[in-house]
Amino acid sequence: MSFAATLIPPPEVLEPKNSGRALLKGQQTKQAIVQAAVSLSTRLGLEGLSIGLLAEVMQMSKSGVFAHFGSREDLQISVIDEYFNCFQQEIFFPALQQSRGLPRLRALFDNWMKRVAVEIQSGCIFISGAVEFDDRPGPVRDALAHAVRQWQDALFRAVLQAKECGHLAAQADAAQIAFEIHGLILALHYETRFLQKPGSLAQANQGFENILQRNVQTQGLACAAAPTNFP
Amino acid sequence: MSFAATLIPPPEVLEPKNSGRALLKGQQTKQAIVQAAVSLSTRLGLEGLSIGLLAEVMQMSKSGVFAHFGSREDLQISVIDEYFNCFQQEIFFPALQQSRGLPRLRALFDNWMKRVAVEIQSGCIFISGAVEFDDRPGPVRDALAHAVRQWQDALFRAVLQAKECGHLAAQADAAQIAFEIHGLILALHYETRFLQKPGSLAQANQGFENILQRNVQTQGLACAAAPTNFP
Repeated sequence: MSFAATLIPPPEVLEPKNSGRALLKGQQTKQAIVQAAVSLSTRLGLEGLSIGLLAEVMQMSKSGVFAHFGSREDLQISVIDEYFNCFQQEIFFPALQQSRGLPRLRALFDNWMKRVAVEIQSGCIFISGAVEFDDRPGPVRDALAHAVRQWQDALFRAVLQAKECGHLAAQADAAQIAFEIHGLILALHYETRFLQKPGSLAQANQGFENILQRNVQTQGLACAAAPTNFP
Repeated sequence: MSFAATLIPPPEVLEPKNSGRALLKGQQTKQAIVQAAVSLSTRLGLEGLSIGLLAEVMQMSKSGVFAHFGSREDLQISVIDEYFNCFQQEIFFPALQQSRGLPRLRALFDNWMKRVAVEIQSGCIFISGAVEFDDRPGPVRDALAHAVRQWQDALFRAVLQAKECGHLAAQADAAQIAFEIHGLILALHYETRFLQKPGSLAQANQGFENILQRNVQTQGLACAAAPTNFP
């Protein structure tokens, strides 16, 4: 046995090999179930989610699926968390690569538009969930509202930074701008997914430009690309 | 018997008294069922509607309720029709009392805001229904989309008239304005009903003013208060 080997215990000494593997496999299975549940929820809604249907999709027993979640509510909350993670990965984190201010705000909106294009085929849990849980108090509604508030805060901060950088006018109302952007995203979802109206994407983009035009600072100052705390 | 009496037969001759009353009573019952169904649907969604629940609310037998509707789909379509009628009565018809152009467009938006205030307690079938039926083709989805397109056309025409009257600029894009107004209404619903955010009504109103400011014709021409065909 080498000297190094005496200093660095083999993995099975640190953690029994079998239980480590079993743990990893369990986590992978849970993650696969959550991803299948997200996919089902975007089409059927959070309330359309059932352990039985999920077991069928995963080709597992109901008890096998149930073992990973304490309850259907826990499963729904895991779906919301996972959906929010994807949302951050696709929309917010890439936008952070852009410099603060208008470039970042634009990137954020553009990424959102790209995501809506994907969601036309499925649906958005933040929109369908709001309809399902708007009058049902409880932990699922709380988790959903918490996730929505997190992205709303991030959007608000991006607008605020654009003001701080001097890209938007000093008198611009950041909360108002965030509200109007939210409206454009909801209208785009509604008109493309439900009414299947062509041209809605161009209208949402034009709406965003209209908001900026109204609030833009013509003599803007360049802002340093400092990182933002998100969410 | 007078001469007039020989010319004008009594009602029971024109139509047997009992069947007339029965018909009227049947129509009244059907209308009462539809109104109860609208009330349930705004809270539970169109898909939350069941003949059983409706029978319970109406204190009738299931077969009694079922006799008035060929199917659950027919009931859902009757609900959409009734909801649309109320929508016209509360939002569009009072707006027609205002003169064409900006006064009418403003009245339309104001009436809508008043309706949303009521719907915070219940819900809007046009919004919840879009989520429920966005990927379910069939007659219910068709009826819902038809109703939504009718109010969208009416809104579009109100914007167009404001352009024709010279209240909005000649280069104003009526479809774009209608899209942005729809966004404000959706955002207001979402932020008040789901997130229970205070201040959303003021933000929706400010958003409407922002849209007008961008498109307003400073030297407007007064328009005649000619009636509009609606829907």
